[in-house]
Amino acid sequence: MSLSRGIDHTAIEDLIRRREWRSLREYLQGLPVPELADLLTELEPAQRLLAFRILPRALSTEVFSNLEAPHQTAVLEGLTDDETRQLLADLPPDDRTEMFEELPGEATQRLLNLLSPEDLAEARHLLGYPEESIGRLMTPDYLAVRPGWTVARSLEHIRNRGRAKETLDVIYVTDERWRLIDELDLRLFVLARPEQTVEELMDFGFVSISAFEDREEAVQLMRRYDLNVLPVVDSGGVLVGIVTVDDVLDVAQEEATEDFHRVAAVAPLRQSYVDTGLRVLYSKRVGWLLTLVFMNLFSGAALAMFEDTIARAVALVFFLPVLIASGGNAGSQAATLMIRALAVGDVRITDWARLLLKELGVAAALGLTMAIAVSGIGLFRGGREVGITVALTMFCVVMVGSIIGTVLPFLFNRFRLDPATASTPLITSLADISGVVIYFSIARWVLEL
Amino acid sequence: MSLSRGIDHTAIEDLIRRREWRSLREYLQGLPVPELADLLTELEPAQRLLAFRILPRALSTEVFSNLEAPHQTAVLEGLTDDETRQLLADLPPDDRTEMFEELPGEATQRLLNLLSPEDLAEARHLLGYPEESIGRLMTPDYLAVRPGWTVARSLEHIRNRGRAKETLDVIYVTDERWRLIDELDLRLFVLARPEQTVEELMDFGFVSISAFEDREEAVQLMRRYDLNVLPVVDSGGVLVGIVTVDDVLDVAQEEATEDFHRVAAVAPLRQSYVDTGLRVLYSKRVGWLLTLVFMNLFSGAALAMFEDTIARAVALVFFLPVLIASGGNAGSQAATLMIRALAVGDVRITDWARLLLKELGVAAALGLTMAIAVSGIGLFRGGREVGITVALTMFCVVMVGSIIGTVLPFLFNRFRLDPATASTPLITSLADISGVVIYFSIARWVLEL
Repeated sequence: MSLSRGIDHTAIEDLIRRREWRSLREYLQGLPVPELADLLTELEPAQRLLAFRILPRALSTEVFSNLEAPHQTAVLEGLTDDETRQLLADLPPDDRTEMFEELPGEATQRLLNLLSPEDLAEARHLLGYPEESIGRLMTPDYLAVRPGWTVARSLEHIRNRGRAKETLDVIYVTDERWRLIDELDLRLFVLARPEQTVEELMDFGFVSISAFEDREEAVQLMRRYDLNVLPVVDSGGVLVGIVTVDDVLDVAQEEATEDFHRVAAVAPLRQSYVDTGLRVLYSKRVGWLLTLVFMNLFSGAALAMFEDTIARAVALVFFLPVLIASGGNAGSQAATLMIRALAVGDVRITDWARLLLKELGVAAALGLTMAIAVSGIGLFRGGREVGITVALTMFCVVMVGSIIGTVLPFLFNRFRLDPATASTPLITSLADISGVVIYFSIARWVLEL
Repeated sequence: MSLSRGIDHTAIEDLIRRREWRSLREYLQGLPVPELADLLTELEPAQRLLAFRILPRALSTEVFSNLEAPHQTAVLEGLTDDETRQLLADLPPDDRTEMFEELPGEATQRLLNLLSPEDLAEARHLLGYPEESIGRLMTPDYLAVRPGWTVARSLEHIRNRGRAKETLDVIYVTDERWRLIDELDLRLFVLARPEQTVEELMDFGFVSISAFEDREEAVQLMRRYDLNVLPVVDSGGVLVGIVTVDDVLDVAQEEATEDFHRVAAVAPLRQSYVDTGLRVLYSKRVGWLLTLVFMNLFSGAALAMFEDTIARAVALVFFLPVLIASGGNAGSQAATLMIRALAVGDVRITDWARLLLKELGVAAALGLTMAIAVSGIGLFRGGREVGITVALTMFCVVMVGSIIGTVLPFLFNRFRLDPATASTPLITSLADISGVVIYFSIARWVLEL
């Protein structure tokens, strides 16, 4: 990239100390917005507020949008009511909604009280949609024209009303009741003759999404149809907002991160790892760890059931770790493949039986390979009977682990849980318990032959 | 979404059987491109070719771009040389490059021979960049203007040359040696007075990326700066292409999928799970599984070292599964948090020491909680000595597991491997081995007291 990331902090602190406001302002204005936001988070609170206040109004709003929630709260606490009201009025509605979401309750209340009645209505309106729905992501900053208008009139409308809008790449066509009937690229208006009507440009081909849909659906739609903007409609087909691809790119990343964490048995964090404190990290991890401790105690209990078998052939114990781990590993592979394929829409819930069949085929081949690999070592370390037991067990645990790994994500989905709840540690624990039972059952049977 | 996904296959097969070509063509033309592509993949080969040939030329190209690689190969095999040449000429350059990438070697050769000399040069040019680099992702379909031009002349240029371009949302400004000096939204030209010069609109603020950078860098840049299009420059700052956000959205998803698979010890698949055959699925999984088998044998060997300790207190064995699993689980959580934070750019490689300190804090709290949870059960099942041993071990394995999980992703990166190579099964295996040693060392020490 062509931007240099090194910003001279001491120079800025120097300018503040020497009260050279004009130079400071000029220096800050010259920085790209994301760098400026990073810089502010790194200054100490008093200096941060000073630097923030010295920025031109439009720029300070942009910088504020780029701050993470805790830093936004810190800045807000330092501002006067008037400054806050001005800032809120300038923020794009979707950024404002997102900020309200992440603020502590009392701060939200204080801010809502500062909003003008119209803005308040809009914020409430945006907040009325379910969490993680499209309604929370959309912005009402779009432009619409009517089918009967000429291209010249449309361009005039765009010129008059377009400056404040978030994106003008797509212009929407609505009927008199504001129902969406088409979308047209801005370039079509530029390329057309001025006297053509909007109707002549229309092809009635567009993809829209309901405001109540899950935001993940927008990611899938925009990927599938290669879209940069997606119009949002209510149940009556009325255009209520748009979702832009840059917001969706963030959503896609957040959703992937949540899935990553779930697969490792970490409850989704609400912020980046760096911004998450020790206490939150502890609380997001301890729940599953304790649950798994109690599940793993069952493996111990299963072991206790086979005390006499163990006593007859202690050498069996030495193969226990590799056998139960292999079942868990094969299961984790299968589960992760399913979870990701479900998340990106490659497979559907109803495909489970077909996928299980495919996984059984792969698991059989994997189990056979691994059984051959350990049989020699079993033979060498514990004799013929241990060799046979170890090889048979390896094949069985890989099969059982793969079945657990394949079926569990679908099962969780059936009970309205995220498929990624079938985490690797959970699969491993289940494979451990079944591995212990399979191993010593086979051992008892072989030893009794 | 407002599109119905149900397409009547039998109706299409009927139309083909009854040779009603006009109705078939009309029906197919009415479908959205992604649905049409899906439909083609579901028809049998002869019918697929027929349906593909009947489409208007522009539409067939679009549909072809939407097919997955194996289906593209199948269609290509059925086409005549002339039909293939026409199709290749119509494909957007980036889609063409992507297709060449995924075709078997001999098919690529045949296709390259069919290309016109100019197209061949372009394909080779695009192919000259390293795999997964921006150069492979970019398209040369953009429009550039000069600073001295008026808005009117620029719009004239856009009208004349803009129809074939992939995106016109951003117009680039270059100097006489084609070096990029600014980028301007198309809307600025629409909103400006015709007699203004391009120079008056310019703000010299833009973000560009080198053609040799990794494609993941484009994801980060476009997310960070909320961009829809990113200009690509060579080492001399000359504009060589653009990257659009819809391609980047695909890249982001593919990279996340690769990481998901790596974390579960699956080598990255090159296609979607559904399109991957049993043999490939086997080969992508067996390598790590066998490696882990041999690693897990060390856990068994470690157990054998403590044979006399085990003989003195068999009850110890029953706590083995829960203790070694807990170390692995805590380690997997830590590793996944690190891997994801590194992938999305939240933390940098150089942060490792600071992050290790933070993780140690969390791990200490987690270890303490879990030690308390198991100590009671240890006391009840095996007496005071076992209770103390189990609690002490739990604390230690959680600490050691967390350290392994935190450090390993950074270590792999140091040796130029993907941090996600620190997979959950690998962490679990390492935690198992160290868990066995820690457990029985503590047990021996406590029993000897």
